[in-house]
Amino acid sequence: MRLATVRTPEGTSAAVINEQSATLLDARDVSEVLAGGNFGDLGKGSGGTIPLADVVFETLIPRPRSIWCIGLNYASHVEETGAALPEYPAVFTKMPTALIGAYDDIRMPPASTSEQIDWEAELVVVIGSEVRRANEAEAKAAIGGYTVGNDMSVRDWQLRTTQWTLGKTFEGMSPVGPWLVTPNEFGEVGEQRITCTVDDEVVQDSVVGDLVFKPAMLVSHLSQVTTLFPGDLIFTGTPSGVALFREGQPWIKPGAVIRTHIDGIGDLVNKCVIC
Amino acid sequence: MRLATVRTPEGTSAAVINEQSATLLDARDVSEVLAGGNFGDLGKGSGGTIPLADVVFETLIPRPRSIWCIGLNYASHVEETGAALPEYPAVFTKMPTALIGAYDDIRMPPASTSEQIDWEAELVVVIGSEVRRANEAEAKAAIGGYTVGNDMSVRDWQLRTTQWTLGKTFEGMSPVGPWLVTPNEFGEVGEQRITCTVDDEVVQDSVVGDLVFKPAMLVSHLSQVTTLFPGDLIFTGTPSGVALFREGQPWIKPGAVIRTHIDGIGDLVNKCVIC
Repeated sequence: MRLATVRTPEGTSAAVINEQSATLLDARDVSEVLAGGNFGDLGKGSGGTIPLADVVFETLIPRPRSIWCIGLNYASHVEETGAALPEYPAVFTKMPTALIGAYDDIRMPPASTSEQIDWEAELVVVIGSEVRRANEAEAKAAIGGYTVGNDMSVRDWQLRTTQWTLGKTFEGMSPVGPWLVTPNEFGEVGEQRITCTVDDEVVQDSVVGDLVFKPAMLVSHLSQVTTLFPGDLIFTGTPSGVALFREGQPWIKPGAVIRTHIDGIGDLVNKCVIC
Repeated sequence: MRLATVRTPEGTSAAVINEQSATLLDARDVSEVLAGGNFGDLGKGSGGTIPLADVVFETLIPRPRSIWCIGLNYASHVEETGAALPEYPAVFTKMPTALIGAYDDIRMPPASTSEQIDWEAELVVVIGSEVRRANEAEAKAAIGGYTVGNDMSVRDWQLRTTQWTLGKTFEGMSPVGPWLVTPNEFGEVGEQRITCTVDDEVVQDSVVGDLVFKPAMLVSHLSQVTTLFPGDLIFTGTPSGVALFREGQPWIKPGAVIRTHIDGIGDLVNKCVIC
């Protein structure tokens, strides 16, 4: 099953995404659907059905209670940074103001703030039910689904100090969506390809099975620290191929179009504009 | 003027704190009062007045949209770590689940999770009005007030990777309060003493004027990255004297009572219990 948050004349609505249409649900967003736990009742939404081509996607979870990000979590990306494989996940965070929809423009800061804009295609875990101090089996059961994210990074702000968060949470720079795919449909992380394409050049191309710390481990680990709630997001890290470690550091220029893809979920397509 | 969020039989209420009493306001918490911008109308609350001795304090802002923390921001603390004075603030974050009231118990994790519990007395800036890409004068005008916080830290979780956030956001470990003091009453950061006392031993003793990056600079800096909203919190950093850098690393033991004080604001008093 696929769930999305879509924009409506009245605001937003959760929706079940079918092959050619979207069925609106009695919930403002996917977070509310997950919190209600009423998956069995889905498809009975009273809001009507609209053609998929007419759907405008809101970011999947407009206001998560927490957004976590994992650094250095693909073996290939760890290798390009020159670091050793990590013993524990490196965790930083984003604020909800960073989030945008699957086809929204990425809002680059003015050049006077930064010109070091970089891409990071990521599998994003969506928490489905409240979870605290969970073992990996309990953690796995708390995963509501998977979606696509791009942890767009402002590298000079990220690397000015030891702490990366500021370079990772610029407002309006992190697309998430277009929909959540439930775990039974997505399956285990394995051979699903994850790619990032900048203006038709494939710059990242890996499989999500290359993750060092897998989704259930990450949820279990974070749940030792704090309760996770339905709709909370975990950006699980990015594979190799970012601009930072490429010859000449080819940062994103205004007007670039970034496509972020994961097999079994779908695509984000975002144009980069200064605003 | 002093504003607090207090617990009531129905939930929580914002209140003006007078010398011997609290006047309840028509707002659920201080964040709502700040967002309403109606400081001129305060004191006209219809909820009645209760003796200060009967007040039970909720954490000042129960659900901020963002909580920022600054590392290495007192010259004395930078010196004890052996680092050079920073050129930019090192910024990490907390999640709202970390926050507790001024006299609540600090919820230590079980010993199997960590025994490296440490204190960090901090001046906390409370955002009063929405602010984005502000210069320092505009940033200063957006400060709603100051309060006391303790950025209680779980050092092994903080220092296992380069990223500190996990060790700083353990659920129920970060007291904030008891009230906000408006800038006109608190004055400029200067000779106000900031102290932390563990079981009657003074372990930190400095003045907030020793801050490397002052409140207006921090607000301006963060506002280049994202909008800040009324009720957002900035933990501004801690002076020297933490357990991490003391002989023998005297971590907090269950049952310890921690008092965190700032002149012109007041005190947090929190007992540490495993739960």
